[in-house]
Amino acid sequence: MEVINRYITIKHHVDGAPQDSDFELKSSPLSLSLEPGSDEVIVKNLYVSIDPYQLNRMKSYSSSQESSAYAVAITPGEDIDAYGVGKVVASGNPKFDKGDIVSGLLKWGEFTVVKPGGMLNKLDPMGFPLSYHAGILAFSGLTAYAGLFEICKPKKGEKVFVSAALGSVGNLVGQFAKVFGCYVVGCAGSKEKVALLKEKLGFDDAFNYREETDLKSTLRRYFPDGIDIYFDNVGGDMQEAAVSNMNINGRIAVCGVISEYTDREKRAAPSMIDVVYKRIKIQGFLAGDYLNLFGDFLSTTCDHLRTGKIQPLEDISEGVESIPSALINLFRGQNIGKKIIKIAEQ
Amino acid sequence: MEVINRYITIKHHVDGAPQDSDFELKSSPLSLSLEPGSDEVIVKNLYVSIDPYQLNRMKSYSSSQESSAYAVAITPGEDIDAYGVGKVVASGNPKFDKGDIVSGLLKWGEFTVVKPGGMLNKLDPMGFPLSYHAGILAFSGLTAYAGLFEICKPKKGEKVFVSAALGSVGNLVGQFAKVFGCYVVGCAGSKEKVALLKEKLGFDDAFNYREETDLKSTLRRYFPDGIDIYFDNVGGDMQEAAVSNMNINGRIAVCGVISEYTDREKRAAPSMIDVVYKRIKIQGFLAGDYLNLFGDFLSTTCDHLRTGKIQPLEDISEGVESIPSALINLFRGQNIGKKIIKIAEQ
Repeated sequence: MEVINRYITIKHHVDGAPQDSDFELKSSPLSLSLEPGSDEVIVKNLYVSIDPYQLNRMKSYSSSQESSAYAVAITPGEDIDAYGVGKVVASGNPKFDKGDIVSGLLKWGEFTVVKPGGMLNKLDPMGFPLSYHAGILAFSGLTAYAGLFEICKPKKGEKVFVSAALGSVGNLVGQFAKVFGCYVVGCAGSKEKVALLKEKLGFDDAFNYREETDLKSTLRRYFPDGIDIYFDNVGGDMQEAAVSNMNINGRIAVCGVISEYTDREKRAAPSMIDVVYKRIKIQGFLAGDYLNLFGDFLSTTCDHLRTGKIQPLEDISEGVESIPSALINLFRGQNIGKKIIKIAEQ
Repeated sequence: MEVINRYITIKHHVDGAPQDSDFELKSSPLSLSLEPGSDEVIVKNLYVSIDPYQLNRMKSYSSSQESSAYAVAITPGEDIDAYGVGKVVASGNPKFDKGDIVSGLLKWGEFTVVKPGGMLNKLDPMGFPLSYHAGILAFSGLTAYAGLFEICKPKKGEKVFVSAALGSVGNLVGQFAKVFGCYVVGCAGSKEKVALLKEKLGFDDAFNYREETDLKSTLRRYFPDGIDIYFDNVGGDMQEAAVSNMNINGRIAVCGVISEYTDREKRAAPSMIDVVYKRIKIQGFLAGDYLNLFGDFLSTTCDHLRTGKIQPLEDISEGVESIPSALINLFRGQNIGKKIIKIAEQ
């Protein structure tokens, strides 16, 4: 059987904020039956993840492209890897059978042909919606968990600040920290988001950074006793303001720098005098280095989801054609929680 | 017996680069016999240490003043604490006898009256010149040792970059790293210093940063395989250039930021994209937090000094009146090695 596989590509490298005209929806015929002897697996994509780091892969050059196996440069015109959940429609690999639900590195498209050695695992949904396994129970969740618990090693009662607190990672960092017993303040870019943080996600406090003119004073107001942990998703001014409000032995986990992705000039220049005298640690990290924690992360998070201690926060669009605008809108702060594309019904 | 005690004060807060006119040599009579029942110790100062952090204490405001017991603000007109070595001339404290050689927190002056609870210890010179115990065998040495081994945890063969490599701390970091089995490159501010680094201290390579226009390319030239460890004494442009040349899992220990002490605008704005994707750690630290390592540090360093594996590098001026120019010249890069003032003969 042959289908038309539609998938997203970039027309050219994307060096600024992404726009519709940077993308193209391509289609090509795909046979759903494998050649005899093939060891490939053909997956019908169900949910794919939309993440800011993809923009770094689209640039003509970014140091990030050399530094992680997941962040290699994207060639214009070619299909684009992305984490997701799918269903096996044909398998030449004895580990997978037709009908298996799987997760792994799929494509921003309707189907993925996974070659031997590709990242693909059978998925036990454990009673949760499949979309959870593309976000909260996958790399977004692991990023939050590893960054908070491994990099920042919180103590109960410590003061935690989270930027981009309604983003896929930030909302979970805040929720994990609350359940753990920290005092948590988040910032986001609208009144509605601030309300969500406080009312739905249980943050102790939250503010709209767009309404603030002096972030240093703002943070002093929200943290009169200083910040112990800053989970940094944005870099730039906010990092500078956080450093100046950190306590002694403060820890900053940096898992993303949205402010730098679209504008290389907007770099943080935190006071190194503060960093020295307050013995601050600024640590960049990638969740892929913490796969050893995946088991702990998964059982903890599933428990919290079942008991309602953690709220899932998903922002789902439908159809492969909605991928470009989903990515574009990430950089406009228009997502609320984990951005996922539902490609097809199971 | 009464003497005239001469000591250095600041006339007013010092917010830029320090100048002669900021300082005053004061004198006041001091009785060298203690009142009956006094528990003070009077110390004749022999060697006192000159360190860049003192400038932060002189500012009208620096966050550093709140962050460490050793870095509290200096009040204009009052005497100034500094680490040093001296000899007890009178003691009301049963732990000390007249004639004891001691080290601890003394004053930038000829005598120190140490109150109970003051930082003071009997010193066993272990056959080394007393001046060593104000520098290489004291906090400068511990800073190098703790920063390199505890913060950066080197592996043999790793590539280490040291800025201000002829400074009190930098020269030891480089020497410790060489003895440990790392590849070490240092930078300094003159041809003569570069020669010293390579010829006397055994650095694998060194360069004069004043001759370089593009530090990023310079570091790429000296580290074609990237930097694993950067020991940062200066902040600013050099930190940015180092971050862009770091390898994955690179570590930056920041023990000082001379570039920021005299000019608040010269801050480093390293690429946070590099920090994230290369999982770089930037860690500020103060040696005072690592007193638990002092025993190890001391025995290791003494061994290396005795076997000649490490060269002591001291820059000694004489007389209390030379203190202001010694501090001023630190910020002009005019010291070679540990800056110490010899106040008096034993």
